[in-house]
Amino acid sequence: MEKPGEPAPQVIFETNPASYRHWSLKVDGELAFLTLKVTPFGGVSSELELKSNSYDLSVDVELADAVQRLRFTHPGVKCAVITSGHEKVFCAGANIYMLASSSHPFKVNFCKYTNETRLYLEDASENSGLRFLAACNGATAGGGYELALACDEIALTDDGSSTVSLPEVPLLAVLPGTGGLTRVVDKRKVRRDLADAFSTLAEGVKGKRAVQWGLVDAVIPRSKFVDGVLARARALAAGAPEVARGPGIQLEALEPKVSPGKVEYRHVTLAIDESSRIARLEVRAPAQDPPKSAEEALARGSAAWGIRAARELDDALLRLRFIHGDVGLVLLRTAGDRKKAHAAGELLAGPEKDAWILRETRLLWARVLRRLDVTAKSFFAVVDPTSCFAGPLFELLVAADRSFVLDQAQVGCRPGPLAGGLLPSWSGVSRLESRFFKDPARAQAVLAAGREGEIDAAAMDELGLCTVFADEIDFEEELRVAVEERASLSPDALTGMEASYRVVGPETMATKIFGRLSAWQNWIFIRPNATGEHGALTVYGKPERPKFDWRRT
Amino acid sequence: MEKPGEPAPQVIFETNPASYRHWSLKVDGELAFLTLKVTPFGGVSSELELKSNSYDLSVDVELADAVQRLRFTHPGVKCAVITSGHEKVFCAGANIYMLASSSHPFKVNFCKYTNETRLYLEDASENSGLRFLAACNGATAGGGYELALACDEIALTDDGSSTVSLPEVPLLAVLPGTGGLTRVVDKRKVRRDLADAFSTLAEGVKGKRAVQWGLVDAVIPRSKFVDGVLARARALAAGAPEVARGPGIQLEALEPKVSPGKVEYRHVTLAIDESSRIARLEVRAPAQDPPKSAEEALARGSAAWGIRAARELDDALLRLRFIHGDVGLVLLRTAGDRKKAHAAGELLAGPEKDAWILRETRLLWARVLRRLDVTAKSFFAVVDPTSCFAGPLFELLVAADRSFVLDQAQVGCRPGPLAGGLLPSWSGVSRLESRFFKDPARAQAVLAAGREGEIDAAAMDELGLCTVFADEIDFEEELRVAVEERASLSPDALTGMEASYRVVGPETMATKIFGRLSAWQNWIFIRPNATGEHGALTVYGKPERPKFDWRRT
Repeated sequence: MEKPGEPAPQVIFETNPASYRHWSLKVDGELAFLTLKVTPFGGVSSELELKSNSYDLSVDVELADAVQRLRFTHPGVKCAVITSGHEKVFCAGANIYMLASSSHPFKVNFCKYTNETRLYLEDASENSGLRFLAACNGATAGGGYELALACDEIALTDDGSSTVSLPEVPLLAVLPGTGGLTRVVDKRKVRRDLADAFSTLAEGVKGKRAVQWGLVDAVIPRSKFVDGVLARARALAAGAPEVARGPGIQLEALEPKVSPGKVEYRHVTLAIDESSRIARLEVRAPAQDPPKSAEEALARGSAAWGIRAARELDDALLRLRFIHGDVGLVLLRTAGDRKKAHAAGELLAGPEKDAWILRETRLLWARVLRRLDVTAKSFFAVVDPTSCFAGPLFELLVAADRSFVLDQAQVGCRPGPLAGGLLPSWSGVSRLESRFFKDPARAQAVLAAGREGEIDAAAMDELGLCTVFADEIDFEEELRVAVEERASLSPDALTGMEASYRVVGPETMATKIFGRLSAWQNWIFIRPNATGEHGALTVYGKPERPKFDWRRT
Repeated sequence: MEKPGEPAPQVIFETNPASYRHWSLKVDGELAFLTLKVTPFGGVSSELELKSNSYDLSVDVELADAVQRLRFTHPGVKCAVITSGHEKVFCAGANIYMLASSSHPFKVNFCKYTNETRLYLEDASENSGLRFLAACNGATAGGGYELALACDEIALTDDGSSTVSLPEVPLLAVLPGTGGLTRVVDKRKVRRDLADAFSTLAEGVKGKRAVQWGLVDAVIPRSKFVDGVLARARALAAGAPEVARGPGIQLEALEPKVSPGKVEYRHVTLAIDESSRIARLEVRAPAQDPPKSAEEALARGSAAWGIRAARELDDALLRLRFIHGDVGLVLLRTAGDRKKAHAAGELLAGPEKDAWILRETRLLWARVLRRLDVTAKSFFAVVDPTSCFAGPLFELLVAADRSFVLDQAQVGCRPGPLAGGLLPSWSGVSRLESRFFKDPARAQAVLAAGREGEIDAAAMDELGLCTVFADEIDFEEELRVAVEERASLSPDALTGMEASYRVVGPETMATKIFGRLSAWQNWIFIRPNATGEHGALTVYGKPERPKFDWRRT
């Protein structure tokens, strides 16, 4: 499993409905229908794959894209029904053979991505007035049930055989990888002893008992399933929060220019130095004046800097995770006109902030920045005279693990109104708040200074925005030493350390999933009982029984 | 590292001040002085061990005993000063050679135990009016600094060289194992970028900067250290909460009868079936009538059931963890007179509950039950006619992962006032609350029924206290099948699952430490980068440099 140097899979995160291979997206007024029918990956186990409607990363990439497009292109949709194109199976979760043959880093990144996608469903439900109904028209197992758990409601067909189940513990000796355990007890609030029984029952729970235990919201006889689902979907749509909606914009393709060691987007450049395992990620301010109103923003569509730069940064982060696994340290740089970046942020937080296009643009930035927060790389922000940590880009300064600030007149930054809580981290608090957890007045002081204008280098230091503050004589040397030192440390220990320090204060379901559940899962994935020669994941589907080291830790 | 079948170390958790090998405990009025001077374990690296004042499990067992005795034997103490008997070193943390040569299960159990001991310092500070001052009279590294972090205040000598440090990440490629990362940002609220810099700086931080960053509360010049510490200790004592105190009781030795497969205490029996990897843990109700007042309780001293049964259960749990690693499932049974157990609980929660002896007895039960909550074994409660889930023993029913209740007339239980929040779990909520997280009214209904009298089997089922409720015909068979099934599942997956389901709802510093930090640490401990042939922990102290697999996950 641990084979350093094996080539990384060339995964692509850009797609669009016309290219979907696994999902179909149908919009019908206030309702949308997302139907999963997985196209098998080919190979020996295709038939089994087809029957189980089980997914790999490409299935989740399409799902994430579909949800994004529902928000931007079909903002009039109030309820999306997630169902299966098969007769007797909703979804059996992640493809076990894919998982068993994947490297540990891929497994972890795969689960992280699917977790983000599930949390984005809940984000859309909470903030965009888009409810989700899982219409489980057949067996709903493992990751399939976890997908249902991320929806607002779960309806299960009552056909005498279809169950919901989390068979990971009994069958595979791993944990459900997509937040299942947390959602069962923390979201659906299933009694913990029943949750315990459920999660060790490979065959799952069906019918009335599934409702009694709180695992699903309703069971519907098979003959009435389609009508029953429609009725529930309409009820969910009717109860969806009243938010501004429409008319919707298309999301243009990003199509970055990819060359060895470099990915170039319009506003973002990702440069990789494989030998030093260091990346440089630069995000640039808008080149033209940002829109002055929601109407202007809408007219620019997805070509607007506010949308495009965020999507580019998102794509770059995913490439960093999946393609550049050896990179341990990312130097976060920004460039461009601070006034323009600040103006872009002011519009997103201004009097028109509830206009749907501005709300969705802001929510997009929040998601992308949270993607950064849970990326297992160190981030150092570098602030020099060309930097533009302003508007939404100010968050990159406070998202970074450290900031290196040059003591020079032209250096500055500009926190705007977005920084006051409109781009919350997964813990629900702003990055400024969690930075100044000891003294919230200091976060307020930074915001107040930002309201006055640009904060110069000396004031940045005084306000607590600099980890290292050095003049021209020392700056490059301090940065060089810190970078070399960071790149020399154990990647595992850094991941654990950053996962602790980036989540200060309150915990939420999301931080529980990324912190608690993912950490346990990381550990379990790597244990011989799961992935060793005789581990349950390794021998799954073979006649061999797994062999366990019984010591409990 | 993973060598199934290697003999478990025969650790003993009973000690007393006269037998301490590493600590001295001196009480002087309202102050106590706990001085660490580790007796080397012997072997080749003794000199280095001596110089570093580094600890193994036996050092922590004595510390836990000392804190327990301060509460029970010296309740008049308002501030305990923790310092070192060496000139230039406070404590360098866990002994690295011990750690590097330990099995993974031992490492994890060792860290869990030290974490509990640290949290008990904070528990004593919060609930027993016993403050702690870390008087760091020399180098304070790793677990040494984590011990200081668990104190209310940290004073560091200013001698030009002594630092506080967490060198685990840069030197050993593991995480600080005793809550250090969490306490740095969540308790001391150090700015996260400074925390990041601090935790990768092997040499640590000293002097004024240590104060500025919030890593210590004061630095005191070496020449004034003793007086300065005394002054701070007196100030802490003066500010200690006004709680009832004294006059103190001795804690008698438990001295269980240990035979193959069995440990017999006065009120507790632990029986181990090594072949099936199942333990039976029985706790019995008081045989005589429990005391009717605080005065009577005090007169009985540590022989009182309320104290003795809790201490016995605690010892049995530690034996389960450290000595019986292969045991995966514990059948929790109780026996005896429910009226007597209920009366014992009523006294602890009654009008005299703030009397020091009752308060400390209650806090002791709370700690022991929390020890059970974070024990990596499955617990099934078995309720039959002889059972006595009443008084503090009622908690065992709701602490269990599942409860098997026989449908028969003589079966019953009795939740008392203790169950309403006086024995909180690590998340701060009662076990009843977290069981009925969806509907707090149901927890109230259980408490209300308990106020009326014993709850019979049928009512237990109705109130939601039974995972399995079966009549005589089915009961034994249902239990047998569930037990066999549980014992067949992967121990790792069960640990991760239980760690998720046992902590429903709110998170606290303690749950962050046990859930988030410990999980990451488990994972990191087992990674080749730490414990592989060329891992940093393996090659520590050797001329070889560690070799890392650089992939970041």
